[in-house]
Amino acid sequence: MTATAYFAAGPARWDAYRPHLEQAFAELGLDVSLVNTAPDPAAIDYIIFAPGGDVEDFSPFTRTRAVLNLWAGVERIVGNPTLTQPLCRMVDPALTDGMVEWVTGHVLRHHLGIDGHILRQDGVWRAGEVPPLARERPVAILGLGELGRASAEALARLNFPVLGWSRSARTIEGIDCHSGDAGLEAVLRRAAIVVTLLPLTPDTENLLNATRLAWMPRGAVIINPGRGPIIDDEALLAALDSGQIGHATLDVFRVEPLPAGHPFWAHPRVTVTPHIAAETRPPSASRVIAENIRRDLAGEPLLHRVDRDRGY
Amino acid sequence: MTATAYFAAGPARWDAYRPHLEQAFAELGLDVSLVNTAPDPAAIDYIIFAPGGDVEDFSPFTRTRAVLNLWAGVERIVGNPTLTQPLCRMVDPALTDGMVEWVTGHVLRHHLGIDGHILRQDGVWRAGEVPPLARERPVAILGLGELGRASAEALARLNFPVLGWSRSARTIEGIDCHSGDAGLEAVLRRAAIVVTLLPLTPDTENLLNATRLAWMPRGAVIINPGRGPIIDDEALLAALDSGQIGHATLDVFRVEPLPAGHPFWAHPRVTVTPHIAAETRPPSASRVIAENIRRDLAGEPLLHRVDRDRGY
Repeated sequence: MTATAYFAAGPARWDAYRPHLEQAFAELGLDVSLVNTAPDPAAIDYIIFAPGGDVEDFSPFTRTRAVLNLWAGVERIVGNPTLTQPLCRMVDPALTDGMVEWVTGHVLRHHLGIDGHILRQDGVWRAGEVPPLARERPVAILGLGELGRASAEALARLNFPVLGWSRSARTIEGIDCHSGDAGLEAVLRRAAIVVTLLPLTPDTENLLNATRLAWMPRGAVIINPGRGPIIDDEALLAALDSGQIGHATLDVFRVEPLPAGHPFWAHPRVTVTPHIAAETRPPSASRVIAENIRRDLAGEPLLHRVDRDRGY
Repeated sequence: MTATAYFAAGPARWDAYRPHLEQAFAELGLDVSLVNTAPDPAAIDYIIFAPGGDVEDFSPFTRTRAVLNLWAGVERIVGNPTLTQPLCRMVDPALTDGMVEWVTGHVLRHHLGIDGHILRQDGVWRAGEVPPLARERPVAILGLGELGRASAEALARLNFPVLGWSRSARTIEGIDCHSGDAGLEAVLRRAAIVVTLLPLTPDTENLLNATRLAWMPRGAVIINPGRGPIIDDEALLAALDSGQIGHATLDVFRVEPLPAGHPFWAHPRVTVTPHIAAETRPPSASRVIAENIRRDLAGEPLLHRVDRDRGY
């Protein structure tokens, strides 16, 4: 069976993805024609999509069987009223590994007080400053999807007591899982370090507002590699100024790139990283795209299909 | 059976250890009298020892059945010619956990380039600087004893390709183990990050000298939470100045506290931490001491007994 896949993720990514997609199609024996223009939208079977790319209006793509998103987050497409075709999120095993490494590294950095050692090489031997063991440092993961779950499990393997929170109830072995509004308060009141990996939906926007930041133990650390608008920026800056929040390491922002004049850059209790925690890698992402096309052509259900009502 | 245990690890530690040791003896039902002076050395059954404590000459302790070291390293006691009694190293599970956390945290710090983010919050969004995945970053562990093995296994669980080296051959599942001189060269030539957890013996002193530092890939990172004299300090400083070694994170030194004027403090490619990676914790260490006394009183072999010929 022959199909046409339209790479609509922008010309900047075409060179990086084209060889990996073509190789992935070949490895699965797929007869897929990969194009990066669509003069006749009605001839396109699959759209490989990223926000800011080439498609805003999906209505002319009358034959399209699926829109395959290159990113894990779908908030910039899921509300598009012209999108009636099935939509799939990217669940890239390499992306998950990269996120676990970033989260584990920054949790350990704060746990071990590494910033103090890097910034204070002043010749003073501070022998007494031994951190507690991980088993004495509760870490909360907000959001227990693919990325949250993998991060929670990696931290639990390092002996951190891990509290998990998700909107609807989940069970993960070795993780103390909570859900709902009462569960969120219980989790935030106990966590020395909070990692936010929630999808962005109307329910999660500004989830960490002034009230909830005040629930956290004084001096707690926030690590956000998920979505910027989960945090109320003004409330976070006030909590950092007061010392209620000891440090925030932020990889995602309402506006990206984060403007040079934004107060996060200059704040001594904030570390900005440039949206690198969840980088999709072309070789592995291409294999995921190819496998979903293979499944659909074979009549099998698509993987990682987005539920429009939940928004993720 | 009644026995007398002499706490000879110095008065500064007596207050921290006494309650935990007495509790550990009680939990095992041992009738052990714990003292911190030994007016009659011939009345002492067990010595709880740390270097710089109260005993230099072991010959008057004619009845002593074992010397139980509070630290993992024994280089400051094993060569003592008056020591004829059995000597046991400390293998504290909490110490191992603390070491694994410190090693994993600093390996991930260098892997993710965290220093750059901490030191360079200048408002410039450097989006392209995405680190490779752990699976593309070989890490070497020199020394595959209790601490090296646990660190190697933790790093392998995070997908780092882990190369292990020890003087005599070892096999550890999931670790690419090497031994001997040829093995050392093979390991150093491939490692982007080298962690040294070797015991200090005449064979390992200055192991990382100019020749061996030159084997490492240019810009490689050294992390030393083991023993200071494993590294030739002058050779390391020269390799850091030339860029052959990209960074050194050092927790142990020939002289501790590291003198305020030592060039390591001021070197931009060196991070000094004050011997905190392998902190023995009194509660868990006391349980290890008590268990070894219980075993000996019951006629069972001592755990973690030092081989005098190997020196560890």
